[in-house]
Amino acid sequence: MTEIYDRVALIGMGLIGSSMALALRERGLVAEISCTSKTRETREAVAELGMADQICDSPEEAVRDADLVVLCTPVGTYRQLAERIGPELKRGATLSDVGSVKRMVIESVGESVPESVHFIPAHPLAGTEFSGPRAGFSTLFENRWCLLTPPQDVDPEALKRLISLWEAIGANIEIMDPDHHDLVLAVTSHAPHLIAYTMVGLADHIKRVTNSEVVKYSAAGFRDFTRIAASDPTMWRDVFLSNRDATIEILGRFTEELFALQRAIRTGDGDHLYEYFTRTRAIRRGIIEAGQDTPAPDFGRSPSHKD
Amino acid sequence: MTEIYDRVALIGMGLIGSSMALALRERGLVAEISCTSKTRETREAVAELGMADQICDSPEEAVRDADLVVLCTPVGTYRQLAERIGPELKRGATLSDVGSVKRMVIESVGESVPESVHFIPAHPLAGTEFSGPRAGFSTLFENRWCLLTPPQDVDPEALKRLISLWEAIGANIEIMDPDHHDLVLAVTSHAPHLIAYTMVGLADHIKRVTNSEVVKYSAAGFRDFTRIAASDPTMWRDVFLSNRDATIEILGRFTEELFALQRAIRTGDGDHLYEYFTRTRAIRRGIIEAGQDTPAPDFGRSPSHKD
Repeated sequence: MTEIYDRVALIGMGLIGSSMALALRERGLVAEISCTSKTRETREAVAELGMADQICDSPEEAVRDADLVVLCTPVGTYRQLAERIGPELKRGATLSDVGSVKRMVIESVGESVPESVHFIPAHPLAGTEFSGPRAGFSTLFENRWCLLTPPQDVDPEALKRLISLWEAIGANIEIMDPDHHDLVLAVTSHAPHLIAYTMVGLADHIKRVTNSEVVKYSAAGFRDFTRIAASDPTMWRDVFLSNRDATIEILGRFTEELFALQRAIRTGDGDHLYEYFTRTRAIRRGIIEAGQDTPAPDFGRSPSHKD
Repeated sequence: MTEIYDRVALIGMGLIGSSMALALRERGLVAEISCTSKTRETREAVAELGMADQICDSPEEAVRDADLVVLCTPVGTYRQLAERIGPELKRGATLSDVGSVKRMVIESVGESVPESVHFIPAHPLAGTEFSGPRAGFSTLFENRWCLLTPPQDVDPEALKRLISLWEAIGANIEIMDPDHHDLVLAVTSHAPHLIAYTMVGLADHIKRVTNSEVVKYSAAGFRDFTRIAASDPTMWRDVFLSNRDATIEILGRFTEELFALQRAIRTGDGDHLYEYFTRTRAIRRGIIEAGQDTPAPDFGRSPSHKD
């Protein structure tokens, strides 16, 4: 493939940053990759894995002469990062990110971006429950959505170029309003994560059921929650704090529904329960039909493993 | 393998009943299997799939001369079923079940069981989100737990025989107090299912986010909830109504924890969130170490499928 950008700077080399580096290199989409990371440990891992051409000690250094700069750190770091790199950005460069919230990113980063730079926020819906550069892999974005929330007056050429980069590493693109993005993600991602964290934390707190019992009998439903409740704590702390209003709105709605079902259980209203559960089953079918999951029964993902 | 029972009667041929039939036959563990099912459609499917030696129109007929009778219908049907089959049970036979709750089963079935019959409730922690005889498969119970809640004065020989049957089809056995069973399952299964049902139902109700958006972006976390929220509505209605007290207790605790996290989000208490999320990550590690799930990153289970 032909190179889409000459020089790309990746700020932060966790799961997403390192997977981008691997995907861009493998497909020859950029001439040069510079990167940086807060900890020496990560920089050394990136060097060992040969993921970048230049591993810089500071973000200021990493973004110098870059045509595309992508923030791949937890969103809570963006404001300060933008203040530091703003003055160093090349004229005509594009600044983007991979954060899970968009309104707050636009507000915190936007004011530090020089007029000569194209700021196009992005959010690839990709990830696993693992973190750090050693968790990265080049196919992470294949057949995943990447949501872009460009400003109204975005430069069409700059947008096109960023889209072509994401498409070249396998992503499907959708353009979205940032507020709508934050609401949609509160429903499909942020609230589910908080609920999973809550359930797993609760199981840990209940004294009359031991942790070893929880672990042993987790296949009966609980296990499905633990994977997403194992996601990176720093990233998720920042997501909730940065998408506070939408998350709290959805959690409020969730509690309302939960109380209604709880009341049906208490009063023995079986019809209400039956109807509710029949509707949710239909949604699952929709997801399978849309190719977002397989219909294969999942009952442990390790049926041959005898413990 | 040698036969463990001469004649086994399976009442109800859904996912569990049909999987038991297939598992018992494949391993030659019983001489004869009789079965029944409420609907003609299921009985015809069972005949077509050749799962039983005798397919009876009524439970009374199916249990005649059986050495082991297993109730495999939703727990809400147990009381009436027990009243019907009680007088027909053979002296010395064992009556068991596969229900997800145990205290209520003991109460509703117990009083119809003649003194000459051994009543040993059981609960195999196995299943998929599919229902009916066509969803059954002979390896469903391999490396899954089967929890038995026998009465204090159980006949040791009858218990040993039932255990050997479950072990022969691959299950790991644990003996448990019925009330403790119901609490453990409320934590590891019933509350998680209700929470998943709630979240999926909520997503369906929110008008500002379309169902097609929910489906499209479900891979960001929501999808993990939809599988368990696709489980059989009748079965789950009965589970919640039959394990009401423990489920409501755990849901109450859940709401308390959720409110605490919600408050931390509202007040911007990042440290509280970070600490909570770090603890839940450790529980996930426990589950993987116990062989109850694999550490393989799960990011769609259909990475090669382009939609």
